[in-house]
Amino acid sequence: MGESRYMRLGRSSVRFDEPVSIISSASVVGTKEGEGPLGLLFDMVGEDDTFGCNTWEEAESSLQKDAVYLALKKANLKPEDINLLFAGDLLGQSIATSFGLAVYGIPLLGVYGACSTCGESLALGAMSIAAEYADRAVCVTSSHFASAEKEFRYPLGYGNQRPLAASWTVTGSGAFVLGSGKTVTGSSRALIRGVTIGIITDYGIKDSMNMGAAMAPAAASTIARHFAEWGTTPGDYDKIITGDLGTVGQTALFELLKKEGYDISDRHMDCGIEIYDAGTQDTHAGGSGCGCSAVTLSAYILKQLEDYDKDSGKGWRKVLFVPTGALLSKTSFNEGKTIPGIAHALVIESNIA
Amino acid sequence: MGESRYMRLGRSSVRFDEPVSIISSASVVGTKEGEGPLGLLFDMVGEDDTFGCNTWEEAESSLQKDAVYLALKKANLKPEDINLLFAGDLLGQSIATSFGLAVYGIPLLGVYGACSTCGESLALGAMSIAAEYADRAVCVTSSHFASAEKEFRYPLGYGNQRPLAASWTVTGSGAFVLGSGKTVTGSSRALIRGVTIGIITDYGIKDSMNMGAAMAPAAASTIARHFAEWGTTPGDYDKIITGDLGTVGQTALFELLKKEGYDISDRHMDCGIEIYDAGTQDTHAGGSGCGCSAVTLSAYILKQLEDYDKDSGKGWRKVLFVPTGALLSKTSFNEGKTIPGIAHALVIESNIA
Repeated sequence: MGESRYMRLGRSSVRFDEPVSIISSASVVGTKEGEGPLGLLFDMVGEDDTFGCNTWEEAESSLQKDAVYLALKKANLKPEDINLLFAGDLLGQSIATSFGLAVYGIPLLGVYGACSTCGESLALGAMSIAAEYADRAVCVTSSHFASAEKEFRYPLGYGNQRPLAASWTVTGSGAFVLGSGKTVTGSSRALIRGVTIGIITDYGIKDSMNMGAAMAPAAASTIARHFAEWGTTPGDYDKIITGDLGTVGQTALFELLKKEGYDISDRHMDCGIEIYDAGTQDTHAGGSGCGCSAVTLSAYILKQLEDYDKDSGKGWRKVLFVPTGALLSKTSFNEGKTIPGIAHALVIESNIA
Repeated sequence: MGESRYMRLGRSSVRFDEPVSIISSASVVGTKEGEGPLGLLFDMVGEDDTFGCNTWEEAESSLQKDAVYLALKKANLKPEDINLLFAGDLLGQSIATSFGLAVYGIPLLGVYGACSTCGESLALGAMSIAAEYADRAVCVTSSHFASAEKEFRYPLGYGNQRPLAASWTVTGSGAFVLGSGKTVTGSSRALIRGVTIGIITDYGIKDSMNMGAAMAPAAASTIARHFAEWGTTPGDYDKIITGDLGTVGQTALFELLKKEGYDISDRHMDCGIEIYDAGTQDTHAGGSGCGCSAVTLSAYILKQLEDYDKDSGKGWRKVLFVPTGALLSKTSFNEGKTIPGIAHALVIESNIA
């Protein structure tokens, strides 16, 4: 392993001088996501949100299983070709993962970072590839509207009203096959250039119907730390993309980063805002969940990086991808606790020079 | 980074040719654990199991906070000296971790592997140190009898009867500070020589009051795979130590490994069996929980490795430490699902040549 393969930057960042390749990816979503603005880009849209299963939890497991199946198939790989699997979801004890992925028999490292889990799994996966702990790793996360409502809020049959600051949990799973940039050049969707690991940030927000506000400080903390540790500015990225802050959280993020001297308003995108048409889909502040940033990355963001063209200005050359998580549970909410947030950042670049 | 620093063995193992040091560790436990056979070895025993908090969940957060505080203090380190924190617990959405560790402001990677989480956090921590992603990492896990009963079974006030195959969730947290073996030789409790990552194993057990039987196949799978990938046999280890199989799971483990051609019965130890005196403490099959293997490692196993003396035969030179996890939730149990298991293994050696 040469000394130049990666370099630590500051306390919480790693830059891969030899980038990690996203060899393939897949997105599987529910009907509402299929009807949204990104609908045509997803690999698979369920006919209904049970996905042929008896419970919402089984349906979510099925999402993960299908996403991994499709991602492996696209890369022409078998489960035996994968050394490490990084996976997680929002359900208590991560049961969507345990029951969805057992069939593959891949060495598993379960991760939890609420809706930032997509970023955490990709960060650990990329670090494992760069350090040569794995030739290929799979990173997968999921969420399901109905299993999440049951886990965190009210049974669907109760029909509770939702305030406008509330987000809508995405039914979906995104899976990513990572490998060494060196060995797979040419068959790569995009390159992971580095990571910045998140720190728990808690501004005392207690309203679980306003998770955007709870997560915005964590996103601001990670993005500002990223710029400082990497010596970059917003202008170095074509897009700075958060996971699921929604419209309320976006406003808070802009204000917090302005206090740090950064204006990202002309290049910010939020997966939760992109995935639904709030005007017609009644999703209020936007989408959320471990699946939100994962399926948006697979279907939309990686496509923009693949479409990059320097001359025409089409697509994107480099993005900062920052999935955001709200670290609450039903129990912590009922006990009157705050909602701490965390966000992990990845620098993802087009494979087109 | 020299090529000889670590080597992958088979599909799921890594051997650190330059071992990772456990610089310091700490264990904090409840009253019942303090009254058990290992009671005098723990760093801190609570006066009562609320640890001065208003809820069981806050009490568990306090366990993690105190364990990390003590481990850092023993190593004469501050939170700012730590690059990465790997942490998890058994509660839904890992809230013991989120609320216990926010105060330290250390970059956090949350992990989940049920009661195997201690092994997973140490495996990822050691891999991060060996790959030089961190100079120092902290790995911490916890469980609490009362928060776990509330999360998985019945409210304590209900006073349900427990079958003899049931285990007793340990109230405790163990924290470990890891660093490079090269830089800290001399101030090290023990050395991590390598890891074998677990694969989900499901034999169809559905009885959540018999988790030992549910986890034994995962332990057997990881231990047999470890021997095969490392080219070792049971005789290469002074002890082979599982997390919380208890007496019922131990019997199943011996039988499963005999079918694979391995007899570990003369050198097996189970943290869940060691931590309580089942005869007088009414703990039935033994202790369990993310805290069980963590506090036993910190208080007892590392002490045996420190006490190793080749000439007198005192202590242990090398152990295989295999925390075991049952990947169930209240919801999966209520929906009639099986209990898949997972186990991660670490080779831990005495620092005394």
